[in-house]
Amino acid sequence: MEETQKITPRSQDYSEWYLDVIREADLAEPAKVVKGCMVIKPHGYAIWEKIQAQLDRMFKAQEVQNAYFPLFIPMSFLQKEAEHVEGFSPELAVVTHGGGEKLEEPYVVRPTSETIIGHFFAKWIKSHADLPLLINQWANVVRWELRTRMFLRTTEFLWQEGHTAHATHEDAMAFARRILDLYAEFAEGWMAMPVVKGIKTTSEKFAGAATSMSIEAMMQDGKALQSGTSHDLGQNFGKAFGIQFQNDRGESEFVWQTSWGVSTRLVGGLIMTHSDDNGLVLPPRLAPIQAVIVPIYKKEEERALVVETCARLKDRLAAAGVAVRLDDRQGKRPGDKFYEWERKGVPLRLEIGPRDLDKGHVSAKERVDAERSFIPFDRIEDEVRSKLDRFQSHLFEKALALRKANTLVLDQWKDFLEAFKDGESRFVLAHWDGTAETEALIKEETKVTIRCVPLPGQGFDSEPGACIRTGRPSKQRVLFAKSY
Amino acid sequence: MEETQKITPRSQDYSEWYLDVIREADLAEPAKVVKGCMVIKPHGYAIWEKIQAQLDRMFKAQEVQNAYFPLFIPMSFLQKEAEHVEGFSPELAVVTHGGGEKLEEPYVVRPTSETIIGHFFAKWIKSHADLPLLINQWANVVRWELRTRMFLRTTEFLWQEGHTAHATHEDAMAFARRILDLYAEFAEGWMAMPVVKGIKTTSEKFAGAATSMSIEAMMQDGKALQSGTSHDLGQNFGKAFGIQFQNDRGESEFVWQTSWGVSTRLVGGLIMTHSDDNGLVLPPRLAPIQAVIVPIYKKEEERALVVETCARLKDRLAAAGVAVRLDDRQGKRPGDKFYEWERKGVPLRLEIGPRDLDKGHVSAKERVDAERSFIPFDRIEDEVRSKLDRFQSHLFEKALALRKANTLVLDQWKDFLEAFKDGESRFVLAHWDGTAETEALIKEETKVTIRCVPLPGQGFDSEPGACIRTGRPSKQRVLFAKSY
Repeated sequence: MEETQKITPRSQDYSEWYLDVIREADLAEPAKVVKGCMVIKPHGYAIWEKIQAQLDRMFKAQEVQNAYFPLFIPMSFLQKEAEHVEGFSPELAVVTHGGGEKLEEPYVVRPTSETIIGHFFAKWIKSHADLPLLINQWANVVRWELRTRMFLRTTEFLWQEGHTAHATHEDAMAFARRILDLYAEFAEGWMAMPVVKGIKTTSEKFAGAATSMSIEAMMQDGKALQSGTSHDLGQNFGKAFGIQFQNDRGESEFVWQTSWGVSTRLVGGLIMTHSDDNGLVLPPRLAPIQAVIVPIYKKEEERALVVETCARLKDRLAAAGVAVRLDDRQGKRPGDKFYEWERKGVPLRLEIGPRDLDKGHVSAKERVDAERSFIPFDRIEDEVRSKLDRFQSHLFEKALALRKANTLVLDQWKDFLEAFKDGESRFVLAHWDGTAETEALIKEETKVTIRCVPLPGQGFDSEPGACIRTGRPSKQRVLFAKSY
Repeated sequence: MEETQKITPRSQDYSEWYLDVIREADLAEPAKVVKGCMVIKPHGYAIWEKIQAQLDRMFKAQEVQNAYFPLFIPMSFLQKEAEHVEGFSPELAVVTHGGGEKLEEPYVVRPTSETIIGHFFAKWIKSHADLPLLINQWANVVRWELRTRMFLRTTEFLWQEGHTAHATHEDAMAFARRILDLYAEFAEGWMAMPVVKGIKTTSEKFAGAATSMSIEAMMQDGKALQSGTSHDLGQNFGKAFGIQFQNDRGESEFVWQTSWGVSTRLVGGLIMTHSDDNGLVLPPRLAPIQAVIVPIYKKEEERALVVETCARLKDRLAAAGVAVRLDDRQGKRPGDKFYEWERKGVPLRLEIGPRDLDKGHVSAKERVDAERSFIPFDRIEDEVRSKLDRFQSHLFEKALALRKANTLVLDQWKDFLEAFKDGESRFVLAHWDGTAETEALIKEETKVTIRCVPLPGQGFDSEPGACIRTGRPSKQRVLFAKSY
């Protein structure tokens, strides 16, 4: 529907490139008439549906059940948890009128649902037999953001928010950690986006949480994208909303809770991780169209035979579970079709012309880093599936290699400054003295934040050392980067 | 999580019965702290997910694409279509503050999205090649309702809203009609709920539509439930939002549009159509759990063997695509389990005790109108599937028989009054003179409304006649009923 325009190269202007890729792949557009909001167009929404479907399967395998809670939350609910209201107050959209009358108590449009869900958990939970209670909600939320960027930060966004209640702190922490692992598995296995799992510092944690964990991914410009969070809420909301249960000794106790979420921000992460100067690149497991078949012919009499073969191969691939599209539009040249599907990020292009018919094969080309290859008709299902699998792995390996090449272990402040000079970003593993003051100082001086304290066993473990900024003692290296 | 309470018999208090069924099946509860809203609990949400999944498949088969538009709509957008703003003004929730500041122009929380989508259609549509544009959105909407009832009418509800644009009025009307047929196919084939397809009168049509069509179902109390609507919007929104395209003669024309929707109200229709005084009854095609297996044993030494057989049969049924649950909870008596699953509407119960093991069969019982039967282990997959299919048909036939028994063809006003006396309702096919005055008079005198003018070919066709109230000429019989 839109006219084709140029994509700004990444090297020239990364932010423009990102917006250009979104526009040219027809994923979304800024709403403009509604501040900071966007319209998610069909191709963008189809990616989100793929993300939802897989995550939903993974949550259900953990015995999590979906439910739905009201969009509106009484203002007084937010005020019950002191840190929570302080954190979210500046970002609230407020409904003051309903049905033509001023409301007695204003409602906020949910920025997140710990409070309203806490209210219902207090009604539902009576004994330890009701625990754990594992709930997830797919919903829209609103946070009044000053600076927005499509998918990455919008006033309204779509997400899932998991909310669970447990009988012990150990149980709650183990569950929050299990979800963090699940997010990492999804990011790496489906999005082909390597992530670092870690603990957020106090100043970066969720307002109301005891501990926040996140997965952090490196975008192609070296900046970090916080891609999912999983919080140990302790008993903070349990106490604020009186969520109590009788333990097996008959005593009344407050529950221990977790909450965790990922959002349409993941689509932004997907775009920024893999796409190139020719447009969108999608990993096959999340591509709404995994393979496109383009018939090639010059004369009209060639057309029928070529298209018929294409249609037969399309049916075979569809029957084999491949999301395949036959682009038999007339009046559009093959080159224009290639260009369109390239920009839309289709992982695999299959071409068939009269000469291919004679040879009984299809010409195949992956979206990036590929030479043309040929697949005999009789092996089409297996070969296409294995090409898609290899392409999925290739994208992950490529992103991992980029991250490795841009991750530095530094001990000198001047090297730190050098790593982040001129608006650049990298992942820097450096020692930090553990104080909020030093963290704030570094942020003020360099715009660099501590993305997380990496969890052990990911290859980022370190000995104690001296803070890169103050020289004071540090327990372990933490992950520094500029971020979205 | 809730204590078990009695279900009020339908004969005693139908409204109470409805609320009791919802509570005892743990489908939802009133939010109370948020006016007119409800919490959809896991079992209720699982039914909605089944509804969504099937409708989404049906829409996609019609080449409809999903997208997502902003929750907020500038107030001025609603005012662009005169009838639309008049119809929706009394029901709006208004956001006046965002991020701590008063907004220059207030936003309404979408009550429906014709206006905001019209704004974007005007940007996206340029030529006839862009048409038809077929978009659907799964979303929450808010309408400030004075009287609410769980699922049937809530301030916030979940729905899908389809919005399409076409080059000709014929195309648009044909599409609106195709969706109406699709809704009817879903209602009858999946919900086992017979419906009448028809055209709404002018006073009952959607605010801003040229013509509204609906499917109307009879609930067990004889009242009608409008269960889905499909609107021919004419060029009303096209003109209001300047949605123009170049036709193939190079002339600029306004598009012709449709919109159509079903909502979580369908869950209410499902409950009211099939459930009984023992609780929820679900048609197998929409049941989150289609069959439950309950092991029966008295001595602990019997337990292992019985449960092991149950688990094996469960795996076989799951592999055959049956949504099956094994209820091997200890410390709960079989009778209590039967009672719980009955209230939750599980279509088929399978029991296995030590004697069944000896005989190599399962004892089976459908949720309603069934004698106990026995299924040999080696035929479990086929027999369970065919029992579920028969149960699906049985529920439809039963609902259809109820509707037939409660549908009257009347010509005398005194018979009409008799049919609707004492708060009763039926479906009455009677002549109407076609005027809004007579329609309003009948509504005022009897609380009965014209549900629709039935479309031809459904068994409700009629000759012209004389209006049942005024005696003036009438083109055809229309469908009268009290309604939800």
